[in-house]
Amino acid sequence: MTFSATQRVFAEALGTLVLVATVVGSGIMGQELAGGNIAIALLGNTIATGAILYVLITALGPVSGAHFNPVVSCVFALRQDISWREAFLFMVAQIIGAVMGAFLAHGMFDQAIIQVSTNARSGPSQWLSEVVATFALLFAILMTLRMRPSAVPAAVALVITAGYWFTASTSFANPAVTIGRIFTDTFSGISPSDALPFIVAQFLGGLLAWVVADRTLG
Amino acid sequence: MTFSATQRVFAEALGTLVLVATVVGSGIMGQELAGGNIAIALLGNTIATGAILYVLITALGPVSGAHFNPVVSCVFALRQDISWREAFLFMVAQIIGAVMGAFLAHGMFDQAIIQVSTNARSGPSQWLSEVVATFALLFAILMTLRMRPSAVPAAVALVITAGYWFTASTSFANPAVTIGRIFTDTFSGISPSDALPFIVAQFLGGLLAWVVADRTLG
Amino acid sequence: MTFSATQRVFAEALGTLVLVATVVGSGIMGQELAGGNIAIALLGNTIATGAILYVLITALGPVSGAHFNPVVSCVFALRQDISWREAFLFMVAQIIGAVMGAFLAHGMFDQAIIQVSTNARSGPSQWLSEVVATFALLFAILMTLRMRPSAVPAAVALVITAGYWFTASTSFANPAVTIGRIFTDTFSGISPSDALPFIVAQFLGGLLAWVVADRTLG
Amino acid sequence: MTFSATQRVFAEALGTLVLVATVVGSGIMGQELAGGNIAIALLGNTIATGAILYVLITALGPVSGAHFNPVVSCVFALRQDISWREAFLFMVAQIIGAVMGAFLAHGMFDQAIIQVSTNARSGPSQWLSEVVATFALLFAILMTLRMRPSAVPAAVALVITAGYWFTASTSFANPAVTIGRIFTDTFSGISPSDALPFIVAQFLGGLLAWVVADRTLG
Repeated sequence: MTFSATQRVFAEALGTLVLVATVVGSGIMGQELAGGNIAIALLGNTIATGAILYVLITALGPVSGAHFNPVVSCVFALRQDISWREAFLFMVAQIIGAVMGAFLAHGMFDQAIIQVSTNARSGPSQWLSEVVATFALLFAILMTLRMRPSAVPAAVALVITAGYWFTASTSFANPAVTIGRIFTDTFSGISPSDALPFIVAQFLGGLLAWVVADRTLG
Repeated sequence: MTFSATQRVFAEALGTLVLVATVVGSGIMGQELAGGNIAIALLGNTIATGAILYVLITALGPVSGAHFNPVVSCVFALRQDISWREAFLFMVAQIIGAVMGAFLAHGMFDQAIIQVSTNARSGPSQWLSEVVATFALLFAILMTLRMRPSAVPAAVALVITAGYWFTASTSFANPAVTIGRIFTDTFSGISPSDALPFIVAQFLGGLLAWVVADRTLG
Repeated sequence: MTFSATQRVFAEALGTLVLVATVVGSGIMGQELAGGNIAIALLGNTIATGAILYVLITALGPVSGAHFNPVVSCVFALRQDISWREAFLFMVAQIIGAVMGAFLAHGMFDQAIIQVSTNARSGPSQWLSEVVATFALLFAILMTLRMRPSAVPAAVALVITAGYWFTASTSFANPAVTIGRIFTDTFSGISPSDALPFIVAQFLGGLLAWVVADRTLG
Repeated sequence: MTFSATQRVFAEALGTLVLVATVVGSGIMGQELAGGNIAIALLGNTIATGAILYVLITALGPVSGAHFNPVVSCVFALRQDISWREAFLFMVAQIIGAVMGAFLAHGMFDQAIIQVSTNARSGPSQWLSEVVATFALLFAILMTLRMRPSAVPAAVALVITAGYWFTASTSFANPAVTIGRIFTDTFSGISPSDALPFIVAQFLGGLLAWVVADRTLG
């Protein structure tokens, strides 16, 4: 079964939309219900994000590859699995989907649709966290895809599940999701001025994973 | 192995009964134990519901398709996977099972068997949540069924797991379960006057999923 | 690969021992750490029990069938999958393993090795809970074994995961585990005088599951 | 696809590094967020560790076997699956990776990179816990590898998930990880003087598992 270029781009937008709606929405839910115990809010946020990743990658993987992430699209272009042209279109779709996803979460939780985050997330340890988180994500994708492709949805879901807890930044690991999170002034947001270093760190982590998975263990 | 029409209808009633007993029962358990921290009550509710969905769909999928949900039965009739006559019988069985499930949960937790909910769940953001939740559920079912049928039980379990946290309504996503929840004045209930808009929103979400999964990505 | 009668009986004893050590040990851990929030203690108890069930059934299923439960052994004898003689030996092994498992948990948590529970668990709603819990467990086993045998470990793990939350008794669902739990005066214990009605309810639930799964949907 | 000796040793170092970074990092995250409720901190620690184990074993299993654990390497040498020479190289790589993993976690959480734990973990019940934990881990590996190799990543993830709760020591079950945890004065640390008895207990548990899985049920 093959899909048209339009269907593939649409799948990337839709998947990233649902992913960011889940990240932002479950963050709001956790924050509202946990009565100040942030660990419990993060548990809900973690479980929802991991769960939806399994679903989205299983459902849309055969359509577009289920990247939902500019770092993934760029690494797949680097590997010549997709063209740079398609990678570019995917990234545009992912960013639009991500921003729409934040808006949708606000609609569902009866909040102002358009917000801008005031959540400070900065400093070398945060940036190191994003390098590690994106390295782990891409490394998991590249190795699992080669070794046991049917396990990719579970591996991606679980590497992010772990990353929410073992990195200080809670593993954004995704430039489109990072941009989407700029537009929410809730639990999972990131202020605009802090987004760029996160995105740079994410591309660095992805590149490092490509070097290790494909060039060192290839 | 084929099953008679009666066996199939019975499977729909039994599965929906156990599903609603789990939703209502784990809601009561969470409420009783969590000492006012609703996030922890919702965690227990989430884990129990996701877990039983995997079990019920694995066990009864080969018998009746394991719909347990009038939106699913209607979409499958729309796709001509089942007849409208069978869809109707399934829906009657699902609703009867759902109400019995609430009664069973009350019996297990030593409560009045027949209750009517006073839980207000209303307003546009709640209705939007139900459109999104049921869209996500049906989209997951339709895409996974086509792409990787063996993953349907896990995908349904996990899309509801995520939905409990990323939608403001905690993802009822099911008209029969909504009707069952009318009959419990506990954590997971919904007052009778609020049920109809939920059900309308659920059918809208299901229809939208059919358009996207079968007509756009078909 | 075939196993001797002795190996099979040994597998039943060992598996039930580890199962009860997990139930009792994780109950103590939860109780000690959760600072009075019983819902959090139950979450830890649930996750540990579900996880070890997947492991034990995957590891020992090919040896003995991984019953670890007299109701399961009796239903399999009823179905003539095993002889009544072997069912009897399995039950003896399960009960010995269960009691040893409670002792082992006490040893690991630096408690008096031999204890007798003072935990009251009685009344019709508790007994109904055990009928439902054991029905759900056996129904999941019998249906999944026929429909998709490779999913049995996950289905059993998840039906108990759900049962810890949706039944008022937290789903003992197992006479050998019930006997083991008599010998611990901690979170997961049951007083000796309350054990017999639990066991009767469990056999009733198992019989009902056999009637529904094998005679009605067979 | 075969891998060179260097690639295999590198995989062991990298996997153990990420494993310890996850154990230590999620311990810090839990401690920081849970506001004194240690059970919630342990839940986050558990979920992250179980999740990353599934990912690492799926990704690196085909390269090196994904031991990340000197007890595993020794038992596989005992079984003549790998040479003692390779087992020795693996163990050196695992220990270096483990210490680097603790340092990386500190870097991500903006802490002093090099620390020494002051966490007392001693006494017979702790040592018994480590015998049991490592027995369970190795038993799960050896049985699952023989019975259903594709289930090894899930079985290892889940046996450690359970072990965090059902053993009093929270299942270190790994001499390299134990050495790595010496170098963190946070939630998951162990003081240097307490490490050696843990390691002895772990090798005992591993040996016992080998006797039971390969010699008794072999």
